[in-house]
Amino acid sequence: MFEQEIRSKAEKAGRAARTLAGLSAGEKNGALMHMAEALVRETPAILEANRADVQAGLEKGLSKALIDRLLLTPERILDMAQGLKEVAGLPDPVGEVESMWVRPNGIQVGRVRVPLGVIGIIYEARPNVTVDAAGLCIKAGNAVLLRGGSEAINSNKVITGIIAEASVKGGVPEGAVQLVESTDRAAVYAMLKMNGLIDVVIPRGGAGLIRTVIENATVPVIETGVGNCHVYVDDSADLEMAAKIVINAKCQRPGVCNAMETLLVHSGVADRFLPGILEKLRELGVEVRGDQRVRALAGWVKEAVEEDWATEYLDLILAVKVVDSPDEAMDHIHRFGTKHSEAIVTRDYDLARRFLKEVDAAAVYVNASTRFTDGYQFGFGAEIGISTQKLHARGPMGLKELTTYKYVIYGSGQVRT
Amino acid sequence: MFEQEIRSKAEKAGRAARTLAGLSAGEKNGALMHMAEALVRETPAILEANRADVQAGLEKGLSKALIDRLLLTPERILDMAQGLKEVAGLPDPVGEVESMWVRPNGIQVGRVRVPLGVIGIIYEARPNVTVDAAGLCIKAGNAVLLRGGSEAINSNKVITGIIAEASVKGGVPEGAVQLVESTDRAAVYAMLKMNGLIDVVIPRGGAGLIRTVIENATVPVIETGVGNCHVYVDDSADLEMAAKIVINAKCQRPGVCNAMETLLVHSGVADRFLPGILEKLRELGVEVRGDQRVRALAGWVKEAVEEDWATEYLDLILAVKVVDSPDEAMDHIHRFGTKHSEAIVTRDYDLARRFLKEVDAAAVYVNASTRFTDGYQFGFGAEIGISTQKLHARGPMGLKELTTYKYVIYGSGQVRT
Repeated sequence: MFEQEIRSKAEKAGRAARTLAGLSAGEKNGALMHMAEALVRETPAILEANRADVQAGLEKGLSKALIDRLLLTPERILDMAQGLKEVAGLPDPVGEVESMWVRPNGIQVGRVRVPLGVIGIIYEARPNVTVDAAGLCIKAGNAVLLRGGSEAINSNKVITGIIAEASVKGGVPEGAVQLVESTDRAAVYAMLKMNGLIDVVIPRGGAGLIRTVIENATVPVIETGVGNCHVYVDDSADLEMAAKIVINAKCQRPGVCNAMETLLVHSGVADRFLPGILEKLRELGVEVRGDQRVRALAGWVKEAVEEDWATEYLDLILAVKVVDSPDEAMDHIHRFGTKHSEAIVTRDYDLARRFLKEVDAAAVYVNASTRFTDGYQFGFGAEIGISTQKLHARGPMGLKELTTYKYVIYGSGQVRT
Repeated sequence: MFEQEIRSKAEKAGRAARTLAGLSAGEKNGALMHMAEALVRETPAILEANRADVQAGLEKGLSKALIDRLLLTPERILDMAQGLKEVAGLPDPVGEVESMWVRPNGIQVGRVRVPLGVIGIIYEARPNVTVDAAGLCIKAGNAVLLRGGSEAINSNKVITGIIAEASVKGGVPEGAVQLVESTDRAAVYAMLKMNGLIDVVIPRGGAGLIRTVIENATVPVIETGVGNCHVYVDDSADLEMAAKIVINAKCQRPGVCNAMETLLVHSGVADRFLPGILEKLRELGVEVRGDQRVRALAGWVKEAVEEDWATEYLDLILAVKVVDSPDEAMDHIHRFGTKHSEAIVTRDYDLARRFLKEVDAAAVYVNASTRFTDGYQFGFGAEIGISTQKLHARGPMGLKELTTYKYVIYGSGQVRT
């Protein structure tokens, strides 16, 4: 059943994608503006559907945090519409000739950016992802199959109905934006096996969702999200700068993937740096878990167990370890990091270069907070997610990462000899 | 058992990859030259091992074509060595800063090419792939786990032993080049699930091998190879040019993925073009299978069935169809093509542009043979395979496609507000 729904939607998306690939930026931007206006105009209908989801969520006993993610307000709907308008304002990557060269036999070979085709987005209970993902996919010339969490199904149905209709009025082919309505898990599994119909699947959500997608997909996947990020404070660091960075990386928004989860401090500055910063973190409500050397400097710190080094808390909890050298810090990062974002604080030129070169992560920082790993902060103007795999895209993914390329070859009768 | 072998080899490869990522082009090139010299020096040992494989293959009744792929000669070993020297001569993509920009808050964000890490290559009975793949992976800074077909196991063991030892003498860390020695299928399945230890798997071989890899991998895969390629001769074509291209695309080397499998001809030129070209193809030993309109023009042509349009013959067989418009040709290509290489022959400017834009394939040609889809022909100087997926790489993959990127961020104490 699920397979039938998904297959027929994916086929429709494929037909839409062929037309969509040929639309100009102006046409796509027009559709995005239509979608934005429709969202605002239909705010009452969206809020009504959302109330049903929130009500059901409260009855099911969802956590406060989850209810908050689920909840829409007129302001949040305005933000979603505003997001679409901003995407309309971004440059269109499609059609860009990245390079073109002539071979000795006279054929001219060019590499041109083209859409990926049909993108499947699998996400959880945030209805705003429905709008964000649809806007970015369309701008990059892709059809999109959306599969949100069951908790937001009423909101997602209404929102998808509104933006799909508006996009068609704006000139985008029917089928370019579709929602998979089955909330059964089997619908996800069916999507993950649609090779030839879905070009790429991007999961957006927690570690469990991402694992499910990776373990079951035969369609190419872009893995996103899990960030066990470290800040290493070297004995060459400006300790005032280090304190600012540590507090920002942990406390500015602890629930996101680019927040710091483990602090590593060189033993040469541990006694000068740690007592003050740990006290400050405690004042800010952070629960600290440290190794023996940390606890010798701050008796109130809880003992860190092996598992702490591997945990992405996404919360006001911090693991802290004293290391005796940059190498020990880098080995720790290599062992426990998730190749997301890693930072060093140092004034040592050679060490800064070594850290940038040797640490294997999507984003490696010298003297800045890990919190900058973000499509907006990097200047991409948008973000569909943060890739933690190495294939195709790494780190924040903007519009360009939602495209691929093809080779176009201009000949005058050349054959191979 | 298999899992234990693979896991321990993959972990060793991961340690080697960390060191390898930091080697200069000069160091990697030195190792490649050592490998080339060792291959030539150890020719007798390689030939002896290869004789055992060929003998076993003959006893097992392998086809003549398979035995030929398996067979090594002193010349073929020289070619393998020469290939390594050529790879040493290519520019190193690692370390290239593709772009770098400054954000309003002063952080400087750069995008730098880095190796993928550990690459698994799964291939069939060609021992030369062992050398080619190892050379390209090392040059791009990657460790490689090789898993060749059981028919070539003796050759592969000896060759891997020789090049691995020579690479270490040349300064590459131990473990950078390793062979998976289990010839059991289960060893392949184990490789395909080594997330976190193997960064990418690239299958090189027939459709069956590729399907097995895609259906069972949880590790990211680059799909390679299957090419059901078309040449469309429009009624605006220079028919002399069309004849040259058709014969080249079918006959110059029919057993490869960029050879033409179906010829589409516009009805407006079918009667002028087809009788002559089909006769010529017949003289060249090609078996032609055509639709009713083709058979009306050449009675000796066999009848094409539905399956013919979807078949990659890899042989001197050609399916031929008459179409009434470029749209019908493009629809046929959309339906049966494998997104590999597609060509049009035309003198119509607008149609040429439309075909290049609308046909979704890794390489789209105007007035040239599909046989140019090849890393050497495109000027990459090397090729690890031809990708038919859209993620990461499309078409011929050279050294750059064996790398990824990371972001490096230079700050001066910036935090996020």
